[in-house]
Parts: sequence; structure tokens; C-alpha cells
Amino acid sequence: IAGGCAGGATKQVTESFKAADLIINPATTFKDKPDPSGLVFGTVFTDNMLTVEWSLASGWEKPQIKPLENLSLHPASSALHYAVELFEGMKAYRGVDDKIRLFRPMLNMDRMLRSAVRATLPCFDKEELLECIRKLVEVEKDWVPHSTSASLYIRPTLIGTEPSLGVKKPTKALLYVILSPVGPYFASGSFNPISLWADPKYVRAWKGGTGDCKLGGNYGSSIYAQREAVELGCQQVLWLYGEDHQITEVGTMNLFLYWENEDGEKELATPPLDGLILPGVTRQSILELAHQWGEFKVSERYITMSDLTAALEENRVKEMFGAGTACVVCPISKILYKGKNLHVPTMENGPQLATRFLNQLTDIQYGREDSEWTLLVS
Amino acid sequence: IAGGCAGGATKQVTESFKAADLIINPATTFKDKPDPSGLVFGTVFTDNMLTVEWSLASGWEKPQIKPLENLSLHPASSALHYAVELFEGMKAYRGVDDKIRLFRPMLNMDRMLRSAVRATLPCFDKEELLECIRKLVEVEKDWVPHSTSASLYIRPTLIGTEPSLGVKKPTKALLYVILSPVGPYFASGSFNPISLWADPKYVRAWKGGTGDCKLGGNYGSSIYAQREAVELGCQQVLWLYGEDHQITEVGTMNLFLYWENEDGEKELATPPLDGLILPGVTRQSILELAHQWGEFKVSERYITMSDLTAALEENRVKEMFGAGTACVVCPISKILYKGKNLHVPTMENGPQLATRFLNQLTDIQYGREDSEWTLLVS
Repeated sequence: IAGGCAGGATKQVTESFKAADLIINPATTFKDKPDPSGLVFGTVFTDNMLTVEWSLASGWEKPQIKPLENLSLHPASSALHYAVELFEGMKAYRGVDDKIRLFRPMLNMDRMLRSAVRATLPCFDKEELLECIRKLVEVEKDWVPHSTSASLYIRPTLIGTEPSLGVKKPTKALLYVILSPVGPYFASGSFNPISLWADPKYVRAWKGGTGDCKLGGNYGSSIYAQREAVELGCQQVLWLYGEDHQITEVGTMNLFLYWENEDGEKELATPPLDGLILPGVTRQSILELAHQWGEFKVSERYITMSDLTAALEENRVKEMFGAGTACVVCPISKILYKGKNLHVPTMENGPQLATRFLNQLTDIQYGREDSEWTLLVS
Repeated sequence: IAGGCAGGATKQVTESFKAADLIINPATTFKDKPDPSGLVFGTVFTDNMLTVEWSLASGWEKPQIKPLENLSLHPASSALHYAVELFEGMKAYRGVDDKIRLFRPMLNMDRMLRSAVRATLPCFDKEELLECIRKLVEVEKDWVPHSTSASLYIRPTLIGTEPSLGVKKPTKALLYVILSPVGPYFASGSFNPISLWADPKYVRAWKGGTGDCKLGGNYGSSIYAQREAVELGCQQVLWLYGEDHQITEVGTMNLFLYWENEDGEKELATPPLDGLILPGVTRQSILELAHQWGEFKVSERYITMSDLTAALEENRVKEMFGAGTACVVCPISKILYKGKNLHVPTMENGPQLATRFLNQLTDIQYGREDSEWTLLVS
């Protein structure tokens, strides 16, 4: 069956590296830790990294925690030519109790493994990787910002290091994890509303493609459209799909619409996981919270631009917001579509619902509320 | 205007590196040159490489020819996370007159620059890059196989080396070129017919995507389907598109159909450059040769699987073949589609036309025929 792991689906677990084998030789000199209020996303890295090498011949080597350093890669490496690569994005939060927490990290591990299968990269035991990451964050615990508006971003990465030019499943790979203390994702600051550019001429993902996996190729190709959005005075791209201009995602976030739907029902809607949509951890958490609350209809459903424009004209839209690990919840106030600026009254609505999700999620993340969704690092 | 070069469209030429600035410090120890008959594609590299570094702050540095070595890349490099990367594929041929030739190299430079724009990587002067490549091949001239069934494969590569995690236009990049002596692309040998797997469940490229550029992301995502093709006993994927199962490309090659068309005309057909198709140099050359010959209709047109199956049933198909730099011309004898093996009578037809293109192109490449399509290296 295609879809197994590079090392063979049945060997998936037994062939994994083990956290118990970690070789820890941390840095002995330390960089200055930046003021969390002035951080630009993903530009400052901590002193150490996690690396695990894999080859078809020898399987996984022992995982290592060692000083952050440049990678030494053969110039034919398949990550550099054919984008045989994937990544994850997660965060460690320093709580009000000074404990450090991860938020639903196993969901990231699940997705990372699915991405690895799609990219024909080697599989691993998710529990073992998570424990290695937990250990790395523990080593770097002083880098987790003492702030409830900042966090330590965790970037697991898995790349093909096959040193030859045939387009094929790699026989060598490198898994690594780097850490970066981060503040709000957008330069505009946390919870300031953003504007979107919706144009069907660029398409992020498509049926039969890789839009539901976190592969590098999904992202690099988006930058060109992102530049055009910025030139048109918008901050992010609203990705459309199909003849009917279905709304799919926003930049690198999932999208939510809180509205009175066509049937007059109060509804929180987000596009379904049909292969085009990245299954975001924040997306899933928002859906689960909303279901728990049981106060309005919660739908994974298609929304077209004409559904949206009709609802805007009829004053049925309450809020639109993006959701993702980097920004948590990000209100949307404007959409440029077919040359017209559509005003979305998210901020006029509070935004009550977006704020409620933000508060609920950050209460859990920063330990203001107990939850099974967090894993204690230390 | 979006679509300009990273350094600004107007600065495109003046900001380029110059071949006259080349710093040449070649290797002083030399690897053994392999027997060209036993080469596996892209596994052996020559002693030297070309590198040119770029940054937004300083523009292009001076190009260097230096011993092949591993790249030292920051682990956050945007090529490794977001596939901000592109490549080209071209060859140097040792002619029967012992002169070394490139085949229509400016077409590769043109495409590379288009890919750079799409990937938001920096632009360069195409003439200057070509002269740097010519010089590299000259330095490595002993690596060009003394064989008319082998050549020196040239792999120009341009990667984003932005050392931060925001999804954005890189402020640092690296252009490099590596060389690999190669024999026939397929393990089955030169001009042995291959079998294809045609299934709409994986889609290579789509409208609004990047299928017409040579970006890494187009290739890595194809390996998963390629594995499934091999498991089903086929050698390559025939990529379909749309509800009507349009034929687009084969693996990493363009596709040609030579047949009696629906109107009873003898026709050489290949899908049009509508944004889904990589504009191959061999594709263009075959079209131009066929137009020059003027012996049959030559069309860039859509062909669906039902067009093909009807023609096969009515014995109207003469030949199908892939075309690309790696394989030149590659006959197709079988297509697995909807669980049935469709026999394509390419080999029963000689294949006369595929052979004629192969001979014509290789006569030019190996200097058996004078042509303006070649550039002398030395």
C-alpha cells in the first residue's frame, strides 16, 4: 500500500528513535534573551536545537540536543531541489503559575506523521518525538518568555537529505527542532483586525494536492500572492477555490465566520477538511469549545464569496476571524474582492466571540484554567 | 507591480553578478571519473561547483567556482521550511568532434528567471549566469563523458536562505550550480518503452498554482504518487487534470501524442502552455522541428483520456512519448487507467517519429549536425 512510512509501515514504531537515547550536550555559552515585547516572529533562536538523523540503511540515529548551529547539507539534498520537507508549529507557554505548558502537542505529532507519509519521509514514534521536544524545551526553559502575550515557538522540521538528483523517495533525512521566543505574529500587534485580499487568480491548494499537509511547497508558492495582497493594501490573502469562489483559508490561518446563516440560524462556520484545508490545532480547539458551549450552531461547511457578500449586505455577519498557532485568533475587518472593499463588522461586534475564544484558549495555555489540553513541560 | 524581481524589477540587470568578476579557486584533488555506461542519474558529482550569494542589503556577491562542498545553512532557512527554491536542468554534450556544447541554454536561463520571479527570489542577468555556467563546464570539461549516450548534467539551483520563520520574501539567497555526469535517465535504459499510471486522485498542478515554473514544491509532492505507480507495476505517473481527465504531463516529462485525430488528420499533439504545463526545452524543440518539417499537423491542444481511449480502440494512435532534458525522448507503451491496461502501439510503429526526433536532437547535441541551437563551451 502506498502511504506507508519510508521505512515500511509495519516498522513504524519499532524503528523510531527513542527519547531515552537522547544525547544531551547543551551550549555552554548563552545568548542574551530578548525583551518579549519587541520580538519579530521567528527571528531570534535559542541556544540549542534537537537533531535526529535517518538513513534507509541504518534507520534513526540517537537524538541529540546540542548548540544551535548551521546544517551541513549536500548541495544535491532533496529538500533543496524537490521540497522534500515538512514542518510543524507549536508553542510552549509560561503560565501564571510559572509552569511551562505545551498545548495539545500530540495533535501536532499526529499531523507531522501524516505529512511525513505524504512527503515520503521516514516515520517515527510520535510519543518519542514529543518527549524529545519536551526535553529540549526543558533545557531551554529560561527562554520561555515571562509574559502572557509571548511564548516560545517550537518548529519541528523534517527534510530529505538524499544527496542525489533523481526525483525519488529519500534514503537520507534529518529531523530537527529549533525554538524561537515570539510575541504577536502580525506587526500590527495582537488582536488588531487585518484586511484580506480575495482573488481567484492564485490558488493555494487543490483536490489531489497537499493542502491538508504541512509541506514546504504549500507555503513558498503563496508568498507571490501575499506580496500582491500587500501592494493592494491588504495584510493577508484570502484563498479562494473553484468556480464558485469558495472561501478556504487566510494566509497561514484557518478561517471562521460567525453569522446568521441562510436559514436565520446563529452559526459558527469554517470550511470542512476536504483535502484543501490544513487541519489546524486552533481550528479543532475552537470547534470543540463551541460544541461544548452549545449556544449556537457549529458547522464545517462550504462558504462561497457570494454567500458572504449576500450576508454582509443583509447585515447577517457578526464576526470573521483567522485561527492558528502563531496568532491564536485574529479578527478580520476588510476583504478586497473584485475591486471592492467589503467591510466586515467584526470589531463592531466586540468582537465578542473572537475575544471569548482568545480568552478561553489563552486561559488554558497560560495556566489560568486547568485543562486536559495542556502537557506540563516542567 | 507584483511579479518584479526581489531586488526591484528595474534593477534586474544592473544588480546582477557578473561573469567577469568570477573568482576561480578550483579543486586541486580530483575524484575518479566513472564509466559513463554504469551511471545512475544524478548520483556522482564533479570536483567543483559555482556559488553566488545574494542579500537584500548587499545585492549579489561575486560568483565563485570552488571545490564542491556541503552548504552551511541556517536551520531556519526558508528553502528548508517553505520551499523557497527553484532549479533548472540542462546538459553539456561532448560531440563527435570532441567539442563541448550546450543545447539552447538561454531557454533554461529564461525559465529560471521566470521561476525566480514566481518564487520571490532575486533576479539576475541571464547572460551573466550562462557565462558563469559555461566557465564552470570549461573548468570541468574532463568530466563531460566521452560518449554519445551520456552527458554532463547541469543543475542550476536558487534557494532562499532567509534565516527566520515568517512566511515572506527572502532577504538572503544562494544560487549554485552542480554538475553530474549522467547516462540514460531510466534504469530500464535508453529508449526502452515505459508504462504509465493514470489516476485522477493525485493532481500535479492546477490553475493559479506553479505548474509552469520549475519550483521544488512541484516535485516533492509527486513522489508519493510515483511510489503508487511503481507498486502498480508502472514506471511513471501520467498526470491528469479536471473532470474530463485531461492529459497533462508524464512524471517529469512533457507528453506527445502522434495520431490520426478526430478529423482524420495526421497530428502531433501536446498539451498547451496554459499554466499547468512545464514549458520544456525539449518540448519546444520538438514542436519547432515538426513545424519545420511541415509533414503533419502540429498542435498544442487538450487531449482527454476519453479522446485517447477512443483513438486506441479505433487504431488511430501511432506513438506516444515523453520528452525532457533528462531522457530526451522516451516511448510509452502502456497506460494503466481505471484498472485496465491500455496498450499503446508506440513500438509497433517503430517508433518512427520518436526515433526521428531523438536522432535529430542528438545529432545537434553531439555535433553531428550544425545548428544554431548549440552554444560551444570550448
